[in-house]
Amino acid sequence: MSKFLSEKYASLTPYTPGEQPKERKYVKLNTNESPFPPSPLVIKRASEASKVLQLYSDPDSSVLTGTLARFYDVKRSEVLVTNGSDEALNFAFMAYCDQKTPAVFADITYGFYKVFALVNNVPYRTIPLNENFGINICDYFGAKGTIFIANPNAPTGIALSVEEIEQILIKNPDNVVVIDEAYVDFGARSVVPLIKKYDNLLVTQTFSKSRSMAGARLGYAIGCEKLISDLNSIKYSVNPYNVNRMTSEAGIGALEDKDYFENNCAQIIENREWTKAQLENLGFELTNSLTNFLFARSDAIDGGTLYEKLKQRGVLVRHFSQNRISDYVRITIGSVEEMNILVENIKEILEESL
Amino acid sequence: MSKFLSEKYASLTPYTPGEQPKERKYVKLNTNESPFPPSPLVIKRASEASKVLQLYSDPDSSVLTGTLARFYDVKRSEVLVTNGSDEALNFAFMAYCDQKTPAVFADITYGFYKVFALVNNVPYRTIPLNENFGINICDYFGAKGTIFIANPNAPTGIALSVEEIEQILIKNPDNVVVIDEAYVDFGARSVVPLIKKYDNLLVTQTFSKSRSMAGARLGYAIGCEKLISDLNSIKYSVNPYNVNRMTSEAGIGALEDKDYFENNCAQIIENREWTKAQLENLGFELTNSLTNFLFARSDAIDGGTLYEKLKQRGVLVRHFSQNRISDYVRITIGSVEEMNILVENIKEILEESL
Repeated sequence: MSKFLSEKYASLTPYTPGEQPKERKYVKLNTNESPFPPSPLVIKRASEASKVLQLYSDPDSSVLTGTLARFYDVKRSEVLVTNGSDEALNFAFMAYCDQKTPAVFADITYGFYKVFALVNNVPYRTIPLNENFGINICDYFGAKGTIFIANPNAPTGIALSVEEIEQILIKNPDNVVVIDEAYVDFGARSVVPLIKKYDNLLVTQTFSKSRSMAGARLGYAIGCEKLISDLNSIKYSVNPYNVNRMTSEAGIGALEDKDYFENNCAQIIENREWTKAQLENLGFELTNSLTNFLFARSDAIDGGTLYEKLKQRGVLVRHFSQNRISDYVRITIGSVEEMNILVENIKEILEESL
Repeated sequence: MSKFLSEKYASLTPYTPGEQPKERKYVKLNTNESPFPPSPLVIKRASEASKVLQLYSDPDSSVLTGTLARFYDVKRSEVLVTNGSDEALNFAFMAYCDQKTPAVFADITYGFYKVFALVNNVPYRTIPLNENFGINICDYFGAKGTIFIANPNAPTGIALSVEEIEQILIKNPDNVVVIDEAYVDFGARSVVPLIKKYDNLLVTQTFSKSRSMAGARLGYAIGCEKLISDLNSIKYSVNPYNVNRMTSEAGIGALEDKDYFENNCAQIIENREWTKAQLENLGFELTNSLTNFLFARSDAIDGGTLYEKLKQRGVLVRHFSQNRISDYVRITIGSVEEMNILVENIKEILEESL
């Protein structure tokens, strides 16, 4: 830290992304990436776009925004594309939180929400998940703040129903409720259709997981026109050309290849359920994950040890030292082959420790 | 604007990018884009990267950062890459401006500085350029704020010397001085070497203009380790994966193709000087631009009218309605052919109005 840094950031603790080790090759099940390459249409469109990089991108990403609008059956003015969904979330913290309006989110959820609150210098309040890591929706009624809910939640994988989220929307008419649907394509239901009914609902999604585009940085927010207009004011005040040409075209390609997307999601769900059954057979306790990861613990081995032993064996999963969940590991769902390697290694580790 | 938007943004006026009309094809000389496509190495590397988009980008963009560090003969820890240089500038406003430390910049300069101050809710103070649109460096001595200087300045094109900027650095030891070198590759001298000597110097640059990558969104900041560490803390608190895989690889390709870069810059300078001579022959008054644009006025026609008449004829330049410069147009330097079209059209417009 330099002596020039504004004192407002004196206690800033940045987000720590999942490790991306370069020293050896791992079976990488720690950052919820897709095991599948992007669609051929993504590669084709992105490569074409690289030939005309001398020209600025369209700051409105009109074609991509229009394609997304048609995909979700909303208006173009109800969609904003961003440099990853983290950017959309940060814009929402900027727009809807301030000294009078704290951010409100679960104690166990996406670790970035807290960082967004800190960097934007706004207060936040956490609401504990229940003992089964579920959200009691009543805890969010009249929350007197801007609510951020990852649905399905991370790293638990557990989803609320559309009806439950609707109750939260109804009970917070004076505050924005942000539903972060980064993992929604693996079996949960999206609340996007509710934006027509509730002016306080903002939904964020990403191309990172289900569309195999983590490396392209493309997210989006969907909400009523006025909310999207707010976020656009912020975008045009910090980075008008936030989405580059190649990523914008890649996004169009991904949306065009609906079959590829649906087949990949179905495959991930199948691999998830298979892996879950295997781990249950090995004595693990797992949440009901509707995402592309599992959240698992065992009486036989604690989370930190399992993480370390798997890493020694070349399999990377994610462990959180945070209270309440330090017993667990979060395991990204990869290919059939990767899941076999994971399960075999866990079997051997458990046998070793007998 | 929704009823939920924080009142801190009640008077926010976002930046207006140069127009990107879609309804007809123009000779586009309004947004300082390069007339040349990106280097073949850029296209090759970006296209290759599109095949592995399922994996997150390296949040540190280590290879690109290392390549930049070697190019500028600095340490890797003295470089931060960003999603366009606008992002680097915004990080600097976040890090180094607050209620006690206003932003300080010229009255006529990059229009975004004012917006960055507004969106970050920090005070700003403008210092008038002199009557020839130059910066009197003494005006910046002991400025009691974080100084932002575009060098060369936009839209005037006029540059300060390295020695002049060094004086500003020396006379502001307790404040950061940000030198925005977006246009430095077209004939001005960079102050990057001074980062070894001054802990208060932050330099920003971009791949947009001289490297034909406006559509890729790639910028960077260079400064002493502590300053870069400050900006990294902010980056990791708002968007750790700010630069996508394709753009990162494209940047490496651009740096590898040094000949292409140097030839393009030389060609732009040649076209600029030719165009300048032509316009002077037509009675225009021009600043001494060391950029890829000209800033020109004529007693025979005012800036707004010239802009409109050129637009009707399919040639787009930029006009600013701001006081002091509303007589001028800013003309991007394009290819030889484009410059010929521009000059021919201006000749005809001047003849018409006789």
